[in-house]
Amino acid sequence: MAKNVPEVVARRLPRYYRYLGELLGQGVNRISSRTLSEKMRVTASQIRQDLNCFGGFGQQGYGYNVYDLHEAIGEILGLNNHYRMIVIGAGNVGRAVANYAGFRRRGFNIEAVFDVKPELIGSEINGIPVLDAANLGEYCRTHLPHIAAVAVPGAAAPDIVEVLEGSGILGIWNFSHSDFECSVPVETVHMSDSLMTLSYRITNPKK
Amino acid sequence: MAKNVPEVVARRLPRYYRYLGELLGQGVNRISSRTLSEKMRVTASQIRQDLNCFGGFGQQGYGYNVYDLHEAIGEILGLNNHYRMIVIGAGNVGRAVANYAGFRRRGFNIEAVFDVKPELIGSEINGIPVLDAANLGEYCRTHLPHIAAVAVPGAAAPDIVEVLEGSGILGIWNFSHSDFECSVPVETVHMSDSLMTLSYRITNPKK
Repeated sequence: MAKNVPEVVARRLPRYYRYLGELLGQGVNRISSRTLSEKMRVTASQIRQDLNCFGGFGQQGYGYNVYDLHEAIGEILGLNNHYRMIVIGAGNVGRAVANYAGFRRRGFNIEAVFDVKPELIGSEINGIPVLDAANLGEYCRTHLPHIAAVAVPGAAAPDIVEVLEGSGILGIWNFSHSDFECSVPVETVHMSDSLMTLSYRITNPKK
Repeated sequence: MAKNVPEVVARRLPRYYRYLGELLGQGVNRISSRTLSEKMRVTASQIRQDLNCFGGFGQQGYGYNVYDLHEAIGEILGLNNHYRMIVIGAGNVGRAVANYAGFRRRGFNIEAVFDVKPELIGSEINGIPVLDAANLGEYCRTHLPHIAAVAVPGAAAPDIVEVLEGSGILGIWNFSHSDFECSVPVETVHMSDSLMTLSYRITNPKK
């Protein structure tokens, strides 16, 4: 279905999905490409082009059915896959990830948290067990989680990634402030990018 | 200097800045627009176009001076402003922000954390005092912080934002999973967007 989608289009899909979900929550069933484009701050022709990459969903003179479009984008994003996820690192970031209920709602089910600290091993975060990071490889080979969120200090990340790569993980969600080469997809959360954007907007107010 | 820059270009600048900083760390002094474009995964002509928005920095046949370009983008982003920042919410996300040393290095100096929990008020996070959220408005009017990171539960965010808006804050960095209208710039960190992108990349592997 989603062949040769430019990366820049793929990167906009989560925003479309999130925004359409908000509309659904507000009881909005139908939206014009113009209104959608205003809310998303891209041009209406961009919206049509983006969605045409996947076969096109709109109807001339009607606009988009919000529910159908939300479902379709969710499917393209693979959100119906019911991923099993693990979190490596029970520090502030790892805890924030483990505590956020929204991930489960979107099909990401966190099954275990790993840490090296003896005082944390055996405890629970949000009902999720904290396991010994020494057993990470074995756990992955037996439980076959799909996604690992890596929330360890940058210096510890390469060793963790090496274990994960060899254990059948499908993708890594990286919070470690450390870039690395990897044979599976890695998405890195660069929180400071949005802080820099805020700085830009403060420094360059719209006339 | 930075007039009428399209938002999409402005949003790429933090990535340029971050990547150029990595090059500097590796001792790289000069880069061609072609190499820069490969690393950034945008076309070389896009790179030239982007940087031309700000007056252009490259030299034909030489490429870009990494240090000069990094400095120039940092200035455009307003990173020389030495912002005073506060964090509202001493939960996992607030703590993660307060503990990350990288922000200070980039000119964002966190001066106080605010929370409502009596057992946290009076403590310190990374040497930063935790103050009573009841005094947030007064603190802002006397200390004039520039940026507030809002890391409170979504339901608590609107009241906090109302206090901040009336107190001279210049921008809000929002982690609250809650969207709101505001008279000052707001940048919201949507962590789940990158998780959805990871899901997309797992579901649609490159051929």
